[in-house]
Amino acid sequence: MGAIVTFGETMLRLSPPDQQRLESATTLEVVPGGAESNVAVAAACLGRPATWLSKLPSSPLGRRVVSELRRYGVTVEVVWTESGRQGTYFLERAGQPRGTSVIYDRANAAVTSATADELATETIREAETFLTSGITPALSSTLEQTVGDVLEIAQVAGVQTAFDVNYRSTLWTPAQARDTLEQYFPAIDVLITPARDARNVLERAGDAGTIATDLAEEWDFETVVITCGADGATAYADGTLVERPAFETETIDPIGTGDAFVGGFLASRLEDRSLGTALEYGGAVAALKRTIPGDVAVVTRAEVDRVVEGDHAVIAR
Amino acid sequence: MGAIVTFGETMLRLSPPDQQRLESATTLEVVPGGAESNVAVAAACLGRPATWLSKLPSSPLGRRVVSELRRYGVTVEVVWTESGRQGTYFLERAGQPRGTSVIYDRANAAVTSATADELATETIREAETFLTSGITPALSSTLEQTVGDVLEIAQVAGVQTAFDVNYRSTLWTPAQARDTLEQYFPAIDVLITPARDARNVLERAGDAGTIATDLAEEWDFETVVITCGADGATAYADGTLVERPAFETETIDPIGTGDAFVGGFLASRLEDRSLGTALEYGGAVAALKRTIPGDVAVVTRAEVDRVVEGDHAVIAR
Amino acid sequence: MGAIVTFGETMLRLSPPDQQRLESATTLEVVPGGAESNVAVAAACLGRPATWLSKLPSSPLGRRVVSELRRYGVTVEVVWTESGRQGTYFLERAGQPRGTSVIYDRANAAVTSATADELATETIREAETFLTSGITPALSSTLEQTVGDVLEIAQVAGVQTAFDVNYRSTLWTPAQARDTLEQYFPAIDVLITPARDARNVLERAGDAGTIATDLAEEWDFETVVITCGADGATAYADGTLVERPAFETETIDPIGTGDAFVGGFLASRLEDRSLGTALEYGGAVAALKRTIPGDVAVVTRAEVDRVVEGDHAVIAR
Amino acid sequence: MGAIVTFGETMLRLSPPDQQRLESATTLEVVPGGAESNVAVAAACLGRPATWLSKLPSSPLGRRVVSELRRYGVTVEVVWTESGRQGTYFLERAGQPRGTSVIYDRANAAVTSATADELATETIREAETFLTSGITPALSSTLEQTVGDVLEIAQVAGVQTAFDVNYRSTLWTPAQARDTLEQYFPAIDVLITPARDARNVLERAGDAGTIATDLAEEWDFETVVITCGADGATAYADGTLVERPAFETETIDPIGTGDAFVGGFLASRLEDRSLGTALEYGGAVAALKRTIPGDVAVVTRAEVDRVVEGDHAVIAR
Amino acid sequence: MGAIVTFGETMLRLSPPDQQRLESATTLEVVPGGAESNVAVAAACLGRPATWLSKLPSSPLGRRVVSELRRYGVTVEVVWTESGRQGTYFLERAGQPRGTSVIYDRANAAVTSATADELATETIREAETFLTSGITPALSSTLEQTVGDVLEIAQVAGVQTAFDVNYRSTLWTPAQARDTLEQYFPAIDVLITPARDARNVLERAGDAGTIATDLAEEWDFETVVITCGADGATAYADGTLVERPAFETETIDPIGTGDAFVGGFLASRLEDRSLGTALEYGGAVAALKRTIPGDVAVVTRAEVDRVVEGDHAVIAR
Amino acid sequence: MGAIVTFGETMLRLSPPDQQRLESATTLEVVPGGAESNVAVAAACLGRPATWLSKLPSSPLGRRVVSELRRYGVTVEVVWTESGRQGTYFLERAGQPRGTSVIYDRANAAVTSATADELATETIREAETFLTSGITPALSSTLEQTVGDVLEIAQVAGVQTAFDVNYRSTLWTPAQARDTLEQYFPAIDVLITPARDARNVLERAGDAGTIATDLAEEWDFETVVITCGADGATAYADGTLVERPAFETETIDPIGTGDAFVGGFLASRLEDRSLGTALEYGGAVAALKRTIPGDVAVVTRAEVDRVVEGDHAVIAR
Repeated sequence: MGAIVTFGETMLRLSPPDQQRLESATTLEVVPGGAESNVAVAAACLGRPATWLSKLPSSPLGRRVVSELRRYGVTVEVVWTESGRQGTYFLERAGQPRGTSVIYDRANAAVTSATADELATETIREAETFLTSGITPALSSTLEQTVGDVLEIAQVAGVQTAFDVNYRSTLWTPAQARDTLEQYFPAIDVLITPARDARNVLERAGDAGTIATDLAEEWDFETVVITCGADGATAYADGTLVERPAFETETIDPIGTGDAFVGGFLASRLEDRSLGTALEYGGAVAALKRTIPGDVAVVTRAEVDRVVEGDHAVIAR
Repeated sequence: MGAIVTFGETMLRLSPPDQQRLESATTLEVVPGGAESNVAVAAACLGRPATWLSKLPSSPLGRRVVSELRRYGVTVEVVWTESGRQGTYFLERAGQPRGTSVIYDRANAAVTSATADELATETIREAETFLTSGITPALSSTLEQTVGDVLEIAQVAGVQTAFDVNYRSTLWTPAQARDTLEQYFPAIDVLITPARDARNVLERAGDAGTIATDLAEEWDFETVVITCGADGATAYADGTLVERPAFETETIDPIGTGDAFVGGFLASRLEDRSLGTALEYGGAVAALKRTIPGDVAVVTRAEVDRVVEGDHAVIAR
Repeated sequence: MGAIVTFGETMLRLSPPDQQRLESATTLEVVPGGAESNVAVAAACLGRPATWLSKLPSSPLGRRVVSELRRYGVTVEVVWTESGRQGTYFLERAGQPRGTSVIYDRANAAVTSATADELATETIREAETFLTSGITPALSSTLEQTVGDVLEIAQVAGVQTAFDVNYRSTLWTPAQARDTLEQYFPAIDVLITPARDARNVLERAGDAGTIATDLAEEWDFETVVITCGADGATAYADGTLVERPAFETETIDPIGTGDAFVGGFLASRLEDRSLGTALEYGGAVAALKRTIPGDVAVVTRAEVDRVVEGDHAVIAR
Repeated sequence: MGAIVTFGETMLRLSPPDQQRLESATTLEVVPGGAESNVAVAAACLGRPATWLSKLPSSPLGRRVVSELRRYGVTVEVVWTESGRQGTYFLERAGQPRGTSVIYDRANAAVTSATADELATETIREAETFLTSGITPALSSTLEQTVGDVLEIAQVAGVQTAFDVNYRSTLWTPAQARDTLEQYFPAIDVLITPARDARNVLERAGDAGTIATDLAEEWDFETVVITCGADGATAYADGTLVERPAFETETIDPIGTGDAFVGGFLASRLEDRSLGTALEYGGAVAALKRTIPGDVAVVTRAEVDRVVEGDHAVIAR
Repeated sequence: MGAIVTFGETMLRLSPPDQQRLESATTLEVVPGGAESNVAVAAACLGRPATWLSKLPSSPLGRRVVSELRRYGVTVEVVWTESGRQGTYFLERAGQPRGTSVIYDRANAAVTSATADELATETIREAETFLTSGITPALSSTLEQTVGDVLEIAQVAGVQTAFDVNYRSTLWTPAQARDTLEQYFPAIDVLITPARDARNVLERAGDAGTIATDLAEEWDFETVVITCGADGATAYADGTLVERPAFETETIDPIGTGDAFVGGFLASRLEDRSLGTALEYGGAVAALKRTIPGDVAVVTRAEVDRVVEGDHAVIAR
Repeated sequence: MGAIVTFGETMLRLSPPDQQRLESATTLEVVPGGAESNVAVAAACLGRPATWLSKLPSSPLGRRVVSELRRYGVTVEVVWTESGRQGTYFLERAGQPRGTSVIYDRANAAVTSATADELATETIREAETFLTSGITPALSSTLEQTVGDVLEIAQVAGVQTAFDVNYRSTLWTPAQARDTLEQYFPAIDVLITPARDARNVLERAGDAGTIATDLAEEWDFETVVITCGADGATAYADGTLVERPAFETETIDPIGTGDAFVGGFLASRLEDRSLGTALEYGGAVAALKRTIPGDVAVVTRAEVDRVVEGDHAVIAR
């Protein structure tokens, strides 16, 4: 079965329990989190072979990232290095008006020096879909080059390439992001972007359908997916627009929702599901993710199928 | 004061904290839980002498069950055995669309070999009310026989018998359940059943009032109570139908709600309260239960009285 | 910059995690809590120098109180004593119909023997605003005298005096409270009272505006603030009535809301903000407080400014 | 089977986990602890009917004490009161040179107003052995009277009376203790005392054997037991001196060791064991206690028998 | 690089924190544990490809086992089934005289119905070493047959077979064990046995060297290893006896020590290390294991090398 | 009373509970730790005014450091910056042969850009003793310059300067350290160094007394202290050598021992204690520190006095 291969940074996320403040909490919960590995976990949970490529410090912290991804069935192919840090981020979850907040501490992470030469590009060539996101090139100029290189490697090998815009305002400006991403667009088959990023970064206007169509036509993407949070998602492919609402969900942890969506969508497409069904799978994994503490969607195929089919969970006794 | 005596299995419930997944949680919280002992705890909290009969493995796990029930004032009379396991169940609490789920691990529990001969039947004979539920006979063929025996013992001794249908689809089919339960019905005075079980298992139709009336008339029950979750409860006795709404509640743990209701209802009836008041007491204990982590309703008489009287809780400072 | 100085009791608050019952919880979380020190923390978080005066037992428990207040930037000037206890209170947080409940265990606290002679009254004289609340005189007859003494010391020194009625039914009756508080009123510049206390204790009628106006006119207060919980707050000063709604908030811990309001209001007034702006600052600190576990408002100036300006918190990534 | 009945105060013990300091710990572990109820638990664990008499505040804290004792099989007969506190104590466990330390907060506990009139003295009259300790009369002058009363009630009823000297320097001076205790001595059959208290309080000199003999002869005690910590224990009865070494133990929590010894000794004597065997049972329960977190000896008969028989615990797989 | 493949049961281990008693602990820590998978983890940590074969229930509990083994780099090839339980065991850690104790709850585990037909025997055929232990055939008569079958499959395929006697008295008698194991002996190349089992089960006498030599000669084993706990280990191969002492270790969790030894020994032998060096590697992994909570030896190659080389760990700052 | 002022980096320390591995722990405990602030806390606990100077990121993490130091009575004067990280370190505590290990993640910490111009040098000028350590200049070339500057500022102002060699092999080589430190030596009055660093970095030979004498004579230090861990400490001043053994201690957390010693020594010297007494105070604070989890010595004056006086801690009841 064709595999999904992703490339990017995975951080250790440190967060206080019970909506405590970072300023006073005495313990922090540790989980791994990174856009591209989150996608890989979601795909693996749906039964799709998934591999994550990266570069990590040769330390208990780097091993921690690897062990947590392996536990969910993701194959990990990383370059181990003695230089560079393990990126971390601190998350404080809270209700309004305090709101959830994030402090990234990812500068000089080991991955920032990763080059296409040292990565497991053979694995990319053998993939069915290769994904990375707009976070990766924003991390260093080396990675800006590397992302271009690996997308080209995938394209040349005939691998489907997918890209999630994932704009991060703490890493670069919209203009910087747009300049860089547009260089990648010719090598990308499937573009996924939050509507917000499409507007702020890609400078698109209009509703989700218009944005999807315009992007697809301008850059000749095979597929464009516009995610609109609680308002669902819209996709364009083969001249057709499809729209699906989001599933209702009781949110306990919002981080990783978009990645869960991407993992569900891509895995479903690799099963030759229709565009609409794939949006539903993406939405179902995303809705389940929000009920689960941590960045990753630890779900089962059966759970996702049930949500897609619209069945309400009842306690089976 | 006349006592309530109940008979059944109590498991150890193991559940991850903070809506974590069973697949990844590193600690589990342990509490006891079992339909009939939950009823006994609720009754004891209302001031009614309550005794729970069962058979347990002679191990720290069996002693754990006993000690947790004793702490809430229930008298425990168990047969200790070197054979048979301590039944457990794993509970994963979650919001929609994930939903709360349960994995029972109760096969070959010590109680499954319990016979009327070895149980403290003298205690049953001296009770004012004896209760068991539809879970107990579903656990083994020995217990199917035992339940019939102890109901007969109670009936012969002039003890009021109460029975909660409590259908568990993981233990038997509706048809198997109906066949078995109907053999017990002649020995039962008070039948309590969720409306859902009345429809699926007892093959009744119509609204709660119709079901209650029909069951009472067909099987000559002294009292029939139909519980309808958030929609309240309906009871039939002495030719009269009474209905009460459920109290509003902020649910933190739904498990044990029905048992809390039964304990509140039976304890109230033993105080010679009217059918309607007893439904209110059942509903009040049930509503309080849902705000409390764990299977059992650790409540005080004063709290229940306050809820029945419709007083909103305010912070008394 | 002129300082706020407050005087009162700070207890150690002991509360079960996760809405467990005090009757069965095996661990308790410990935080400090006291009306007047809560006010000092809120003011300090807004950048205002704040000092808390009290009397504490010379023990790890007394030191615990001091260390927790210092961590939030409050200067602590306490009399250490070998006699008298550290007051505690037990808090059980729960949803309806159980409701949150409190057990005070504060009798014979060290502070109950505090006299004006031994307190750091020089610090009061150098303050810009001095605050205490109706809880303090209710704790002992010594404190009833002491509160009168320190208010007079402040008044004589030309320090603005503020007083939060803070009626506690477990400490005295409304009539006792009224008799005592009215003796203090001539020495008070700023009176803050929950509408509920104004009605029950001060025997006022009418809406919040009427109450504020009547109190100000009868007792010649410079400022009167009436807090109405989720319905906002009303203030009267210089012949003008101002009203502000409360900010929406997702409550995780309601204790300390009123104190957070007072701290925000007073700190804002000391910055020469208008009455209406000060009500908004009070409301913003209060709204943030309710999202934070514990009695004290661990907030930043920037967060409070953001809430006052009406910005919704979004995850900044 | 003849029961042991004990009378005294049980506190809630609050202690930081993992050898943290009280001054900085954010959570506290809660367990009940009191000399006389500790004895009752130890006796109940050995299979002896045991009842604890006391007076408690009608609150979740008082109910907490009751529920924790009941869980270990102790029958609880308490007077519930609206006045008086629940006594607590704070325990900080630590190695040398810091050392374990204790802060008692037991003044004005509900039990301090308990009189013989209101206690369940009928239960004392029906006991086989009645025990209290030197802590109880030290708590209040009312209790000083009550202890004399209940000892007399027991003596008149022909119940064996046992008394553990248990001197507490935070409650009274050695001279005060001696004066009070010597008034009780004529009513006491079995005197148990740490060698240290015998020397400091009872002003005895010489080795343990000499002390035991002298005390027995002077006051005509039926039995005298002198405990010497890690050096074992010595008992005198019927003109004979018996000595037994302590069992080796890996201490995780030293609190309650003496009470565990007393419970084991008395329970064993009630089985008509020899004085030496009873010392061994006391020592075995004490040694096991020190391996268990908390004040009470949660042990099984089989474990104690094994230790007495000198068998080393091995992992039975 | 040639792989180690192991076959057996992995349970979920549930244990109270902080040496609490199972009878009263409110939380349990969960980790996986099973002799054969423990060996696989140890080997994987040393860099050896390791695969674990088994049969598991298709549930979150079964997935939990898989995910925990995968995190440490073990490849998992299991048969998923809807029937059969997830085996568990309860562990209470304690010092003397209480001692650490274990309650197995492994009857009817899913693995007990595993047959050679359904297992991934192709993986066995491709292994360099195949290991199982005396626990596996003791679990069911089906497994008794299956173990014989898979050993034969390995032998026929020219795979080195290793077997750890691992006698469990809760599963069978010494005589039953001996009868069964001796049937396997002709198919076994490397026999590893605790000296205690060699004496009790295999009915050998003499010192470790004598036992090793006698066993090797009688059954024509290629290698025999006798483990003697803190007294080290002795091995016989090619007519030579080698003995190595154990490394000193500060034990925090003794469970899994033997398996860690086996994993280290076998992995080292697969690197063509001498018999003595392999004993040292086994001993080093075992010593490290005892400092780590849980059943499995989460170690790094570098740590093990350092211990073998006799370097004391110092804090590298 | 003359104050101690220290300057350096304080990190957040993240460590798994219960000797778990960093590779698998799911929660981390957070405490602040830094050589110079540890010294300040120890001095403050002994009653000496203590101020810590540094530069911190304007974030919850930076505020966390400040709040934790303030709680122990240290005055904090920091430069807040928007650039630069909060340094962290990961600590894994373990017994032998695993051993305790540390992963520093302190590159690019905010403090690395601190210059004498922006620090509160007025506070240094008003100090009685100013301390920094060999860690600070090793963090950046800016800090190498800054340390020289602030030592000179102190010297010019007539403030006693103290310096702890504190060599960190992860930051620089012995040769680099020696070159840098020797440039500071002319400005240093009190040199404190582990014997190990004196040998490896300062290239001294001989016993502690010889090293102390040689250093003092060569560099004209007022005082030289050589610490030898469990072997005690030796000091040289005014032509005299003094030696003191270490106090026995049950170590639960070794990190921060040296800093506790320095804080105790310096605070004692500021009380005009003799050299020998100051060594004893240093040793007593160090011994207590090792019984306390975390980097800082949360002790009381009374505890330290008791240890110096050689009294064994007993449970005072």
